[in-house]
Amino acid sequence: MVDSLKRILLGRPLKTREHQHVQIGIFRGMAVMTPDALSSVAYATDQMEIVLALIIGAGAASQYVTNVLGYSMLGTFIIAVLAFLLYLAYRNIIRHYPKGGGAYAIGLNDLGRFWGLSAASTLIVGYTLTVAVSIAAAIDAIGPVVPFIGHHKLWFNILLTLIIMVINLRGTGESATVFVPFTYAFIASIFLIGIAAVVNALMHPEQVHLPTLSGMAAVKGMTLFLFLKMFASGCSALTGVEAVSNSVPVFREPSVKRAQRLLLLLVLTLSTMFIIVSGVAMMHGLTYNPEVPLINQEAMTLFGTHGFGYVITVLISVSTMCILAIAANTAFTGCPALWSSMARDGFMPRWILHKGGRLVYSNGILFLTFISLLLTIAFDAKVSRLIPLYAVSVFYTFTVSQLGMVVRLFRERGKNWIGAAAGSIFGLIMTATACLIFGITRFRDGAWLVIVCVPLMVFAFNKIKNHYECVRAELKYDFSEPFTLEEPGLTIVPIASVNKASVAALKYAASHFENVIAVHVVTGDTEEAMQEATRKIEADWERLNSGIRLVVIHSQYRSVARRLQRFVEFELERYKPENVTIVIPHFLTAKWWHALLHNKTATYLIAWLVFNKHVKVITVPYQLHR
Amino acid sequence: MVDSLKRILLGRPLKTREHQHVQIGIFRGMAVMTPDALSSVAYATDQMEIVLALIIGAGAASQYVTNVLGYSMLGTFIIAVLAFLLYLAYRNIIRHYPKGGGAYAIGLNDLGRFWGLSAASTLIVGYTLTVAVSIAAAIDAIGPVVPFIGHHKLWFNILLTLIIMVINLRGTGESATVFVPFTYAFIASIFLIGIAAVVNALMHPEQVHLPTLSGMAAVKGMTLFLFLKMFASGCSALTGVEAVSNSVPVFREPSVKRAQRLLLLLVLTLSTMFIIVSGVAMMHGLTYNPEVPLINQEAMTLFGTHGFGYVITVLISVSTMCILAIAANTAFTGCPALWSSMARDGFMPRWILHKGGRLVYSNGILFLTFISLLLTIAFDAKVSRLIPLYAVSVFYTFTVSQLGMVVRLFRERGKNWIGAAAGSIFGLIMTATACLIFGITRFRDGAWLVIVCVPLMVFAFNKIKNHYECVRAELKYDFSEPFTLEEPGLTIVPIASVNKASVAALKYAASHFENVIAVHVVTGDTEEAMQEATRKIEADWERLNSGIRLVVIHSQYRSVARRLQRFVEFELERYKPENVTIVIPHFLTAKWWHALLHNKTATYLIAWLVFNKHVKVITVPYQLHR
Repeated sequence: MVDSLKRILLGRPLKTREHQHVQIGIFRGMAVMTPDALSSVAYATDQMEIVLALIIGAGAASQYVTNVLGYSMLGTFIIAVLAFLLYLAYRNIIRHYPKGGGAYAIGLNDLGRFWGLSAASTLIVGYTLTVAVSIAAAIDAIGPVVPFIGHHKLWFNILLTLIIMVINLRGTGESATVFVPFTYAFIASIFLIGIAAVVNALMHPEQVHLPTLSGMAAVKGMTLFLFLKMFASGCSALTGVEAVSNSVPVFREPSVKRAQRLLLLLVLTLSTMFIIVSGVAMMHGLTYNPEVPLINQEAMTLFGTHGFGYVITVLISVSTMCILAIAANTAFTGCPALWSSMARDGFMPRWILHKGGRLVYSNGILFLTFISLLLTIAFDAKVSRLIPLYAVSVFYTFTVSQLGMVVRLFRERGKNWIGAAAGSIFGLIMTATACLIFGITRFRDGAWLVIVCVPLMVFAFNKIKNHYECVRAELKYDFSEPFTLEEPGLTIVPIASVNKASVAALKYAASHFENVIAVHVVTGDTEEAMQEATRKIEADWERLNSGIRLVVIHSQYRSVARRLQRFVEFELERYKPENVTIVIPHFLTAKWWHALLHNKTATYLIAWLVFNKHVKVITVPYQLHR
Repeated sequence: MVDSLKRILLGRPLKTREHQHVQIGIFRGMAVMTPDALSSVAYATDQMEIVLALIIGAGAASQYVTNVLGYSMLGTFIIAVLAFLLYLAYRNIIRHYPKGGGAYAIGLNDLGRFWGLSAASTLIVGYTLTVAVSIAAAIDAIGPVVPFIGHHKLWFNILLTLIIMVINLRGTGESATVFVPFTYAFIASIFLIGIAAVVNALMHPEQVHLPTLSGMAAVKGMTLFLFLKMFASGCSALTGVEAVSNSVPVFREPSVKRAQRLLLLLVLTLSTMFIIVSGVAMMHGLTYNPEVPLINQEAMTLFGTHGFGYVITVLISVSTMCILAIAANTAFTGCPALWSSMARDGFMPRWILHKGGRLVYSNGILFLTFISLLLTIAFDAKVSRLIPLYAVSVFYTFTVSQLGMVVRLFRERGKNWIGAAAGSIFGLIMTATACLIFGITRFRDGAWLVIVCVPLMVFAFNKIKNHYECVRAELKYDFSEPFTLEEPGLTIVPIASVNKASVAALKYAASHFENVIAVHVVTGDTEEAMQEATRKIEADWERLNSGIRLVVIHSQYRSVARRLQRFVEFELERYKPENVTIVIPHFLTAKWWHALLHNKTATYLIAWLVFNKHVKVITVPYQLHR
């Protein structure tokens, strides 16, 4: 039943050779690699405005609101510049790492284990947050359109996470093509908002405001700290731009050139879209509303909430939700692959290394689902509560990548290395500064969690690696040792009574082992009952005439398992565990609920014997048919 | 760690012979056997008044309230008469069943399996409800005194249930003596209320009202159905009176006489206390209040809420809570003992039969805790929601007892049997009628649950009995069969690589079995990786020089366990499962968390081989030390 359900949900298992390498161009690359980055504009402006909401207050005049929002516009422009600088930095990385790899590989190879693991830890935190944030934002985006979803956000967050999990467990073979229309639909949506805003501004100039410098200067409470805090939140728009550099080999030749071009295209599109979203919000004085994200507000303002205009508004909401869901999907492809690389290097458990039946890293996907659901539930599916963690982890990853690049350039000292290194150092300083600013300004809002988790993860990965190395050393076989047979030991068969199951076990033991004894534990609520039971088993034993010695022991404490354990412990004082074998008759019931009607003595005993006493245990199954 | 915690909470294990038989007289019998019955007066009047609350309405005049409450007084008197009739019926039962036994034994022996199991089912429902109702009422009683408890009733219900569970798991050896003061304190509390009420009525006659016949006749909305419904709720006062008849042998000789005398004493005390509680409520026009039970209201009215009077009020609350907790405790002694008898007869799972380490039926106690917590949570720890279920189940038990008595008297036809039979038939009609009334009037309030559950339980008990009989027949060994040894079969050793653990398993297999083969499954994400792995294992195998044949198989689906399963299935086409043995190397990690780092292939495979394929499995443990 479980198997057929699995088959229906996930499809048939695939052979290793069914794996296909598809190489793509810029058009499809844009659809596959950018949703994580582009979708960030669906929440980045909101996150900046949350910080500004503190100084706007309720019932402020439109012009005043626009003046305050001027700061978010300023932040948007700075972030656009930052995006371009990141492009320059990652252009370098793409050239030097044409096989892709990302911060983990770069850190591990160029900076040593500590940096590689730090980068991996922040990447994992980032991937997890991408899932949690994108899905929360997706549900926020559709909430104003479908009120039922808006009223049960947490449940729909969980549902959407599980749907994306199932899609990924099925395998992402065909996904690239599927994503194309959604990515372009979202880009079109935002540009449509931009065009409509411009047309509207030209036709009804009285409806829009622009900030004035004097007005902005007059805003009360606008401190540098607040601005940096806002800026940190806005930088969540930059999450995901590193994706292109990780997958250079996916592009058709010349792959480096194509990757660099796509990155440039991404950065320009992203910046433009971000400026549109922040700009329209500013011009119309739209402020943060936890129930209606800014993109929805902008669509409603420009296209209305009735008739054909409302259809466009709904389409914009849906395309926003889709791109965010696809962004979450990106993490489901990236994170398990990263874990698999780490497992190959020995830093993660081995069960996360291999691809499952559908040629995807099933265990990794399940594990990522588990952690991101934890995050979603812990932070009540609120984007604004997750963002502080997000910004820090993303910029930490950027920093490690840059640092790796700088170290590599210094070591190689190739052609024109000084120019390239200067660029990388500038990038390093920029990302490190940003990282520091976010760590400080958002420390109490959750950045501390990242700061605590990352070292713990690095510690854990090291521990895991050490364990695997120890195990390998300990299990290493010395081939010079001759392959000798063992001397005979003791074989014990515990029996509950003389019945078909126990006789089967006794016959098996007598057929293969030398020194066999049967053990029977007598229990009872009274002494008389126990004596009666002893007589019964001894009579049966005589009739069986097996030639095996029977030991009957009495339990004063009414626990068969406990008494058998004592008996084995006693025998282990004379025999070494390697030489003791226990043969356990184990009858299997015909229906699962029948198992509830039988004592679990055998199962309990097997676990104890194997795990605590290291003796060899033979399970002799006996199937009941009714 | 678990073991020492268990030792601290529950004490050391006890030997079977440490079990002591204590025989008691009427004084201690009153303390031990009556709390269940006596404690019912703590909620029975409240339960009648809930029904009447519908026709009183808010802001009624004192005299009108007293007139309505006259009906609850009438109900109380009828129930007192009913109690005396029950005494007469159970007097008979005590004489005819001097070894005790209760409705289950009587039903099973005198009426056949169906009636015995029906009685047992209702008894179990009753015991479970005793726990749930008594504990809920106990928390209600202390609520007005300790507001914190009153505000978190459900949690304190759960806590109190768990405390009583732990006390019972420790064993009830000393409990009889401990209960004496509490039982008598509660009796004293109620009589104190009665005396204070009489003194108060004499000194301040203007403060009390008595109902008038004309006033009662003028009450609007008092239908027969409503009265019967109220009466059914009030009959919850009679729960627990059968307890004495179940434990006749506990009394000192002449035990039958002593038991009968105690039963009479119980019925008289119970009736008097019930009349006091209902009477005082009527005289002072005290009506149902979900936050303050009537006994608390009466104590506050008579003794005040300040100074010394308040101390008495608090003491009455505490003694009420204690007697209710002791009543719940009664079920914890009775129900597991009943289950154990049923398990001895084969109607309940065998694991519920035996006494645990502390000479008590530990599994039964845990199971009862589980069900009653379920009930408590499902009914939100509200006495009023549990009472309808309670009344039906108790009177159903009474009915089965009476019917058994009648049948027995007819069969034996001893001296004076006609008189005794006439009495029993009267008792039967009475209890059956009551049972029917409750079933009808409280059907929608929860009685249906009892009506649904009891047949289901009877069905399940029969199923269990059948299963045990089938298993016994199927496992029965034919002693005429000679004890012959088995012919050699196939032994398979799956290995992950040549290492110390797998070599230990190979040596063991080669030492004891004839036809041994080793199997290695090669997996990999690419064909090259798989070929490389094949070369590696074959080279190692050559160096090992064990003389055992190695079979290397490739998995196209990357699942080692799945591929091994296919291999075993293939071999099972040539060999019978009885003749196939699988030797599985199983390495044990030094720390528990290390186990998370290793594939669970071995464990999974063992379960599959044993449960689905019925082949013999040998686990060869290899302990890692670091």
